Amino acid sequence: MATLIAPSNHSPQADAEALQKAFKGFGTDEKTVIVILGHRNVYQRQQIRKAYEEIFQEDLIKRLESELKGDFERAVYRWMLEPADRDAVLANVALKSGKNYHIIVEISSVLSPEELLAVRRAYLNRYKRSLEEDVASHTSGHLRQLLVGLVTSYRYTGNEINARLAQSEAEILHEAVKEKKGSQEEAVRILSTRSKTQLIATFNRYREIHATSITKKLLDEASDDFQKALYTAIRVINDHVKYYEKVVRDAVKRLGTDEDALTRVIVSRAEIDLKIISEAYYKRNSVLLEHAVAKETSGDYKHFLLTLLGKED
Amino acid sequence: MATLIAPSNHSPQADAEALQKAFKGFGTDEKTVIVILGHRNVYQRQQIRKAYEEIFQEDLIKRLESELKGDFERAVYRWMLEPADRDAVLANVALKSGKNYHIIVEISSVLSPEELLAVRRAYLNRYKRSLEEDVASHTSGHLRQLLVGLVTSYRYTGNEINARLAQSEAEILHEAVKEKKGSQEEAVRILSTRSKTQLIATFNRYREIHATSITKKLLDEASDDFQKALYTAIRVINDHVKYYEKVVRDAVKRLGTDEDALTRVIVSRAEIDLKIISEAYYKRNSVLLEHAVAKETSGDYKHFLLTLLGKED
Repeated sequence: MATLIAPSNHSPQADAEALQKAFKGFGTDEKTVIVILGHRNVYQRQQIRKAYEEIFQEDLIKRLESELKGDFERAVYRWMLEPADRDAVLANVALKSGKNYHIIVEISSVLSPEELLAVRRAYLNRYKRSLEEDVASHTSGHLRQLLVGLVTSYRYTGNEINARLAQSEAEILHEAVKEKKGSQEEAVRILSTRSKTQLIATFNRYREIHATSITKKLLDEASDDFQKALYTAIRVINDHVKYYEKVVRDAVKRLGTDEDALTRVIVSRAEIDLKIISEAYYKRNSVLLEHAVAKETSGDYKHFLLTLLGKED
Repeated sequence: MATLIAPSNHSPQADAEALQKAFKGFGTDEKTVIVILGHRNVYQRQQIRKAYEEIFQEDLIKRLESELKGDFERAVYRWMLEPADRDAVLANVALKSGKNYHIIVEISSVLSPEELLAVRRAYLNRYKRSLEEDVASHTSGHLRQLLVGLVTSYRYTGNEINARLAQSEAEILHEAVKEKKGSQEEAVRILSTRSKTQLIATFNRYREIHATSITKKLLDEASDDFQKALYTAIRVINDHVKYYEKVVRDAVKRLGTDEDALTRVIVSRAEIDLKIISEAYYKRNSVLLEHAVAKETSGDYKHFLLTLLGKED
């Protein structure tokens, strides 16, 4: 369930003109930008961008970048991109940072096979290199194998489960946790090729055998980047709502707030399942996500995030 | 350039009825099957299949399988499948054979990124498992890394070349030929992520540095399945016409003829570039490909292959 509140009818031309008026003169009328763009779905935003280009011969996204600033600008910029293009940008920024590989894992593990392909296409269009090419040249060893395996995956999406396989592969994953030689490559094969339904059956089997979840085990024992990426992949595949709840929780809890993470989750999920993530957050923390966000952010950025979270103006 | 001769207008209904008549009674009129299906392009064949299903409530492909036999049946069956579906079947048969990994390399290296995706989709639909899942569970070590890397590739198709990269990666490939520890993984990364244009520049650079082509070097030194697969991948990427010419040459030269290989090339390329492959064959062997095929095959199978090769009835 989405949190975004968008009208069923709007005029892209009227929106484009109202935005242009908000940009005019000294200073920008940020409130208008938020009221309009914070209440339009992905299709409507693309239409506004097109109308703006036609009327003013100018790219709306470029104009927004020059009019806005700071966390607010970054959030609006990401919001305006089509989802696949946004994920391509997020992946590229993460790769260039030389850490944040969890974002690569997150994108490649949460999306459907066709959505992931759309990100790979968007990445090619934008950067003239393939996503896996950049992933591979920034990483090495087992971490590289896992990340490349995940971004190139195209999983079966049916519901059949092979119980025998779940049993044997739960054991292989256990060996990978224990860093048994050779098991890492098998873990990569399993995580990057099996269907999500099959993998969840495997994780469940693991819990039955070892009386603890594989993620708990990895959390205790993860010693290198490969195991950390494995940990993230398993968590996202197992329950992406729970995973996102934790990302948001860590982001607001941190001294100074992790705006990048907060923006990423809210912008990426507002039209998909942010309501469910928000409910999970409340259940876990006994605090409304809106309140936590309002407490940790300020100004236009705060106003924009709360709008995407479904707060009525 | 294709060799297939197909009329611009045909009636799918009339074709379906003529085929049904050819099946009727004791024995099959194979000549009619060849005259019709051997002169229809991929779109027309799908239309005939649809018309046949509508008129006779029967799958034409299943009926053909029961009416025909031997190499002729296998060739017609493959011809009737849509190209992506045909490649999915070829890949599956190769995997089950436990050898023939060169067919996996061939399919994944000759197709465009979008064509390869179509094969992965067809594979999922047909086998309820992903192609890479089956590749990974049939292989291990560097061979697995290379094959999975190739089947999951989605390369950049632009023409930019990075000369510095071509230089450094030519050296890495040389180390992989020499089996230097750690270089195999780098070779996999290069072969499965770089654009074909970039790779060809790298192979050219290799020749300049080492005064011999990397394929010659590999042919002399290839010691295991990984290096053999590397050899095939490089040959297909470098010049797939030359590669196919060799496949056909080996197929007809062999004592007993390799019908599977001969059928695969003719059926797969008849609508694409079989004329160019055929010209390359003539140039290399001073024998017309039609004559070589006619000499090594017989009966309906021969008649069908020659029809696909563009021989007028």
